[in-house]
Amino acid sequence: MPITLASNNYGKSRVRVVKVTRHADRHDLAELTVNVQFEGAFDAVHLSGDNSSVLPTDTMKNTVNALAKAWSGEQIEEFGSQLADHFLGNNPQVSRVRIEIGQIEWTRIAQSAFMRGSEEKRTTRVIATPATVEIESGIENLVVLKSAGSAFEGYKKDRYTTLKETTDRIFATAITANWIYRISQVAFGPCWREARAAMLKTFVERDSPSVQHTAYAMGEAVLRAVDDITEIRLSLPNKHCLPIDMAAFGLDNRNEIFVPTDEPHGLIEVSLQRR
Amino acid sequence: MPITLASNNYGKSRVRVVKVTRHADRHDLAELTVNVQFEGAFDAVHLSGDNSSVLPTDTMKNTVNALAKAWSGEQIEEFGSQLADHFLGNNPQVSRVRIEIGQIEWTRIAQSAFMRGSEEKRTTRVIATPATVEIESGIENLVVLKSAGSAFEGYKKDRYTTLKETTDRIFATAITANWIYRISQVAFGPCWREARAAMLKTFVERDSPSVQHTAYAMGEAVLRAVDDITEIRLSLPNKHCLPIDMAAFGLDNRNEIFVPTDEPHGLIEVSLQRR
Amino acid sequence: MPITLASNNYGKSRVRVVKVTRHADRHDLAELTVNVQFEGAFDAVHLSGDNSSVLPTDTMKNTVNALAKAWSGEQIEEFGSQLADHFLGNNPQVSRVRIEIGQIEWTRIAQSAFMRGSEEKRTTRVIATPATVEIESGIENLVVLKSAGSAFEGYKKDRYTTLKETTDRIFATAITANWIYRISQVAFGPCWREARAAMLKTFVERDSPSVQHTAYAMGEAVLRAVDDITEIRLSLPNKHCLPIDMAAFGLDNRNEIFVPTDEPHGLIEVSLQRR
Amino acid sequence: MPITLASNNYGKSRVRVVKVTRHADRHDLAELTVNVQFEGAFDAVHLSGDNSSVLPTDTMKNTVNALAKAWSGEQIEEFGSQLADHFLGNNPQVSRVRIEIGQIEWTRIAQSAFMRGSEEKRTTRVIATPATVEIESGIENLVVLKSAGSAFEGYKKDRYTTLKETTDRIFATAITANWIYRISQVAFGPCWREARAAMLKTFVERDSPSVQHTAYAMGEAVLRAVDDITEIRLSLPNKHCLPIDMAAFGLDNRNEIFVPTDEPHGLIEVSLQRR
Repeated sequence: MPITLASNNYGKSRVRVVKVTRHADRHDLAELTVNVQFEGAFDAVHLSGDNSSVLPTDTMKNTVNALAKAWSGEQIEEFGSQLADHFLGNNPQVSRVRIEIGQIEWTRIAQSAFMRGSEEKRTTRVIATPATVEIESGIENLVVLKSAGSAFEGYKKDRYTTLKETTDRIFATAITANWIYRISQVAFGPCWREARAAMLKTFVERDSPSVQHTAYAMGEAVLRAVDDITEIRLSLPNKHCLPIDMAAFGLDNRNEIFVPTDEPHGLIEVSLQRR
Repeated sequence: MPITLASNNYGKSRVRVVKVTRHADRHDLAELTVNVQFEGAFDAVHLSGDNSSVLPTDTMKNTVNALAKAWSGEQIEEFGSQLADHFLGNNPQVSRVRIEIGQIEWTRIAQSAFMRGSEEKRTTRVIATPATVEIESGIENLVVLKSAGSAFEGYKKDRYTTLKETTDRIFATAITANWIYRISQVAFGPCWREARAAMLKTFVERDSPSVQHTAYAMGEAVLRAVDDITEIRLSLPNKHCLPIDMAAFGLDNRNEIFVPTDEPHGLIEVSLQRR
Repeated sequence: MPITLASNNYGKSRVRVVKVTRHADRHDLAELTVNVQFEGAFDAVHLSGDNSSVLPTDTMKNTVNALAKAWSGEQIEEFGSQLADHFLGNNPQVSRVRIEIGQIEWTRIAQSAFMRGSEEKRTTRVIATPATVEIESGIENLVVLKSAGSAFEGYKKDRYTTLKETTDRIFATAITANWIYRISQVAFGPCWREARAAMLKTFVERDSPSVQHTAYAMGEAVLRAVDDITEIRLSLPNKHCLPIDMAAFGLDNRNEIFVPTDEPHGLIEVSLQRR
Repeated sequence: MPITLASNNYGKSRVRVVKVTRHADRHDLAELTVNVQFEGAFDAVHLSGDNSSVLPTDTMKNTVNALAKAWSGEQIEEFGSQLADHFLGNNPQVSRVRIEIGQIEWTRIAQSAFMRGSEEKRTTRVIATPATVEIESGIENLVVLKSAGSAFEGYKKDRYTTLKETTDRIFATAITANWIYRISQVAFGPCWREARAAMLKTFVERDSPSVQHTAYAMGEAVLRAVDDITEIRLSLPNKHCLPIDMAAFGLDNRNEIFVPTDEPHGLIEVSLQRR
């Protein structure tokens, strides 16, 4: 059987850029990390070493910088679309471009001064072809913890099960969520904030019988809150905080002292859609 | 439109385990990091909080430990299959299980002493259903560099292109490769070593007109070297080493001094198959 | 010349603990990482393998957990002192104990729910002997950026100098500061907040002719704001945001678009004291 | 009491450089990360914003690059000394310069191709004044593990001690060692290799009653092996591999299956000298 090129893509990852927008009364600040990836008619590059169709990844980086200047500094979804449009418009050899952007959180502390926020990121992914565009928005690494209203019991047990059932545990997770809009022009900022608020409200207010149940409820809350979102995926690590057995010290640990652990961790993923 | 659960999966990630096999004349050592993920009939967990079908992720961790004791300590592909078989055999609610294993490199320095090798990992991914099993093997983060035989010229230029063409650059990358076997029983160890050797030989011996061309050539070499591999994917970051312009210092940098950079980086991905 | 044991210390690092304090109307949350280190009469351990004086580091970890239960959950300086007192009181072989604590930032979002804050940490270091105690408080990784009011000009130049003088650059840094109190009992919480506020106010309000000048001014502001602080050390990386030259694209980058870089970075350290 | 500048230093950290030395029959490769730090007469910079004595940290970076061209590509201790000499010779305002260099491990796989080795680094620190120079060499992160010949028993116990005594445990550590030479001109390469070999031989061959005892023995072996070393410091984390209790699964874990953990970890530090 002959060997064939089944698929290929190439691009530039981790292009970092800071944009300062200088208003009369204040500066605005945006810090982004951008990935650009191309698919298309690149067989000759791979098979015969003919580079004539290859826009260098260094040029992709330069383009991110150049277009950042024209960008409003506001919605990353719009910047992603502008990049996708530019690359498709100037590169007929490209059949599909994927732009991923993560925005770092800076909090204003003065007219032209800022403090780094949490490791939470606002994200977008724009996938475009000459005929179509799909825009995802999302959140990465929104870390939350509740110390009440979380249980885990009634689960399946086998010979390797040692976990104790509990009606009161710590539930800590790092929310990563990605959602797809029905249309390519929505009010990205307000939609993003409403989706985020819906997830947080559900996490806080609703009792959790399992991470799965809470993950589903959070997705449902987003779909109920924002009509233009048609689909959402959530990925929730269970960042275990294990109660420490203090019987050996003659102490009774009444759910007060825990050891937080990074590994191993549970991982719960769920996607919801309208149909 | 009603909201529906489109898909879901759950499991345990980053289960770390060390196995010491105590032979009469020496110890063998294996250090693994294992991920377990289930898909199946878990709608009630998400929708009504009924946990009766949920094997706890803590039990998954315990199972990895328990089955590590029975495992030979040799091929991680076999350990992955044993885990998949165990989970499917005892959990009719599970329709699909995914086991991912990464093995850390330890080099023997005495009968029962070892030194940590590079950050390269041997990897496997076993995806099994009650009817099927697919076994991937792979390599993660095999970092290599060549200081001769790499060029990049003749590429497309636009108004944002500032990169200089070169017939002599440093080519540094971290090879990640994953391949699929035709059948579920092969000599995993020898196949893995042959695939690795084929990639290294190609990287070293073949002139590189682009990362793309080298990536394809490496994939082709693996498919030619190991008959039982039907498909391979490679992911090669271009870990740029940029020549430093020393004209301002009155010095002529003849491809001697470079600054290695982590970000941004190129990213070249390719998959090849027989058909 | 004979070989001698010049110094030694041992302990446990990265002991992580979460404490939930369950009030009637709310939960409080503290997440700490604790290091414990002993110096003392441990020559026999090193020279003859006699472990009788060695309190295991595992016991240090257990002690951190046990004493966390009795701790108020409020000032980490007090917890550090309690640990030091405990260890010195029960281990006459120990001549000096060092406790380091870093507190992770959690922000309340409900009565028993929290969101992870920035990577800034509140820190303390308690160094105690049977006769003395020295308490340091500090801040680690408070990341700030100002896009106006920062210059760097008039510096020394030599044949390797290519940096352009500027009257308007971005100044970004990650503040790490440690200060020593005159006495071992102060109002640790208010003092810490005043010290932090003094540094931020200086960073924001005062024009910066160099990182050095700002570092000194920040230290001076802390000493002026909090009488009980006798000495302060600051360590400020210069997290360079480099303006991107867009002349090649036919664009004029008026201090709008920058590339933030992690390496290399400047590093400015200064200590101030009263005397 | 007036506020005074007690001490200050500044410099550039994480200057990365790759040097390719092009011999007729092969290329040699060196990858370094360099830190440069100055102390001296910089009061005016801090107090009045007068930058005339400040050599920019950007110039330090350029100097590292420029001097890397002239360097032989062989001993990092010599490169450190050359940098220190250059900076002191051209900057009378500097009273003390500190150069730290870490060399990354690359293994030759062909005449001009290399594979990344382990995360072990060869290091040096050169501290020079106009009158003196002190050269340290070292190793960072040499990770080793022995699965036989390590015990820990007979230690002190208190009410918080739960650790079980053992005559057979895994001993895993990441060796960091730094040593000082009697004179500033030694055969740095051979001395470094002998010191490293002496530590490994001791780790492997000598039974370990405690990490402390092994740390001392390793230091002693280095001082015995290399006459020109007058002092050595070792820092050994105890990278715990905890045996997993399988009694609950009906299995007997005979020191076969362990969970390796990153935190918390023991930390053992010792220094030895001749006198």
